Amino acid sequence: MSLLERTIKKIYPQDSAFRDRAKERLDQLALPHWALGDLMDLSIDLAGITRSMTPLVSRKAIVTMAGDHGVVAEGVSKFPQEVTPQMVYNFVNGGAGINALARQAGAEVIVVDMGVASDLTKLADQGKIMNKKVGLGTDNIAKGPAMSHAMAQRSVESGIDIAFELGERIDIFGTGDMGIGNTTPSTAIAAVVTGKSIQELTGRGTGLDDEQLAHKRVVIKEIIDRNKPDPKNGLDILAKVGGFEIGGIAGLIIGAAAQKKPVVVDGFISSAGALIACSLEPFVRDYIICAHRSMEPGHRAMQEKLGCRPLLDLNLRLGEGTGAALAMNLVEASVAVLTEVATFEEAAVAGADK
Amino acid sequence: MSLLERTIKKIYPQDSAFRDRAKERLDQLALPHWALGDLMDLSIDLAGITRSMTPLVSRKAIVTMAGDHGVVAEGVSKFPQEVTPQMVYNFVNGGAGINALARQAGAEVIVVDMGVASDLTKLADQGKIMNKKVGLGTDNIAKGPAMSHAMAQRSVESGIDIAFELGERIDIFGTGDMGIGNTTPSTAIAAVVTGKSIQELTGRGTGLDDEQLAHKRVVIKEIIDRNKPDPKNGLDILAKVGGFEIGGIAGLIIGAAAQKKPVVVDGFISSAGALIACSLEPFVRDYIICAHRSMEPGHRAMQEKLGCRPLLDLNLRLGEGTGAALAMNLVEASVAVLTEVATFEEAAVAGADK
Repeated sequence: MSLLERTIKKIYPQDSAFRDRAKERLDQLALPHWALGDLMDLSIDLAGITRSMTPLVSRKAIVTMAGDHGVVAEGVSKFPQEVTPQMVYNFVNGGAGINALARQAGAEVIVVDMGVASDLTKLADQGKIMNKKVGLGTDNIAKGPAMSHAMAQRSVESGIDIAFELGERIDIFGTGDMGIGNTTPSTAIAAVVTGKSIQELTGRGTGLDDEQLAHKRVVIKEIIDRNKPDPKNGLDILAKVGGFEIGGIAGLIIGAAAQKKPVVVDGFISSAGALIACSLEPFVRDYIICAHRSMEPGHRAMQEKLGCRPLLDLNLRLGEGTGAALAMNLVEASVAVLTEVATFEEAAVAGADK
Repeated sequence: MSLLERTIKKIYPQDSAFRDRAKERLDQLALPHWALGDLMDLSIDLAGITRSMTPLVSRKAIVTMAGDHGVVAEGVSKFPQEVTPQMVYNFVNGGAGINALARQAGAEVIVVDMGVASDLTKLADQGKIMNKKVGLGTDNIAKGPAMSHAMAQRSVESGIDIAFELGERIDIFGTGDMGIGNTTPSTAIAAVVTGKSIQELTGRGTGLDDEQLAHKRVVIKEIIDRNKPDPKNGLDILAKVGGFEIGGIAGLIIGAAAQKKPVVVDGFISSAGALIACSLEPFVRDYIICAHRSMEPGHRAMQEKLGCRPLLDLNLRLGEGTGAALAMNLVEASVAVLTEVATFEEAAVAGADK
């Protein structure tokens, strides 16, 4: 049995007894009923995920997965491919958006080379990034599959490995991505999984103009027509129209779920990874917290498919895990509601008139 | 010249040169243009507010103002008036929602007795709350004005005093409220200032049923018909249909603006205070950050009148400053974007194709 199969076997739904216990306490807090709204819903989830009335969420990591995409040859991104490794260096030097926001949230940033089209072994040897490179960028999905099925499995299993390695010292994961061109495979995944139109799902990524956006739509149609991924088979979708970092994100989510730890899913690319993960094992859904609603128009359809309402809506479209870092504070706040707020009885406060 | 008049004279709009400098830097950050969306808009505001490219926001206080309302005699709240002082004790003991969320955000909670209908001098003598009591609760606004014009001015000036006292050691303020019945005066203020219908603006507060909600609407109509507040005169509105804690919140906001410090305005009640503050001096608006969109239906109209889009939308309806505490993390994150993220040049990352 493969690591992927073994890991999936460990994934169960949230624990309903802990959900009930959390709800019972929240119902009694000295405030108008459910007056902390979505934070209270979230704290029930966290109790159900962690099987605890005091869910641990203080040791946080954002795992930022980097990979390149052969499809950039089709002119689907405003930025050149060299930006992917340049941004990896920026992450390592602490100067990127994710570094700033993770610091604010008290989260560690773990950078992973899942398949950057440059040699980053020096950074890996220095212990500054994790080396899980599956290949030097995917093949051009406008011409054929992104990768073999074996590579797709390897990318997911690398994510699982990371989740277990970090799991010894980390309570909660956030997903992140870096990869020039990666809104194109993510949009293709969204189209295959949600069944919505490419017209509706495709967005400007890092800033395409109208003409470039129209071209991107043509390319995505070609990608799906040529590769014909099986909408019911996550590994097939990943192999045919995905990316190495997207597979890594899917694996990280699966690995978190197998350890009964929450995973905060960032934006558009991370949600593509989440859709792959849920396709491989639907129970994974119970461990996912959707951080935010991205500017990419397809994100709404992806989150509806995941059945997850995002916590934030701040017109973000950066990726890297930035939305996940911001949402970590809300996760921590929701645990504080469950564990630190007194009940009517504890606080000796009169209740509502019946 | 009164303290209120003197303070208003110190309030100028945001500094446009610092706004421009902040925008110039943000335009050059090593990320797709404006990819951190609302956080970048917010960091421009913070530079304009504080006249600094490194806005100080680390020393945070939530000021939770408590007051009672004679209008509870009309049966407009599900909770008895004794809950107001009981919740003050809960704040002091650290067991309320605001205590939990302020701790998470690294903010201090300052509790102020603006006009609770009980004797809280013991807590004030012990230094656990600030005593700015204007009266033992307002008069019943369904029968006449809430307070005299002199008391209205005193409640606003008490808020100003607090802002200046705290200003020596606090960089950023959050507003908060506690007062059984206070959605009723706040809805009346919203109706007077926005001109929208009572039908549209009135909500369930702490949890009214349909019949109680219909009754609350009748009471609010009576309040406005009887008192006829002048929509262009903030002090008149506050005196006739307001509350002591609402005046205190208005004063805190004015005092923050006069010190060129940002003030995070919490939910429905705090927004009523903000509308009074902006009525007294429209430039105050430049110093307000709207924390969240409350469940109270009238909140949208109030925020539109303030011209402020909220950062969060989490179905909160607690008050106390809880939404402001949550938003403090986003404020801190937005400063980190301005001060900690590298530009394309600093990070040696290639820019977008032109």
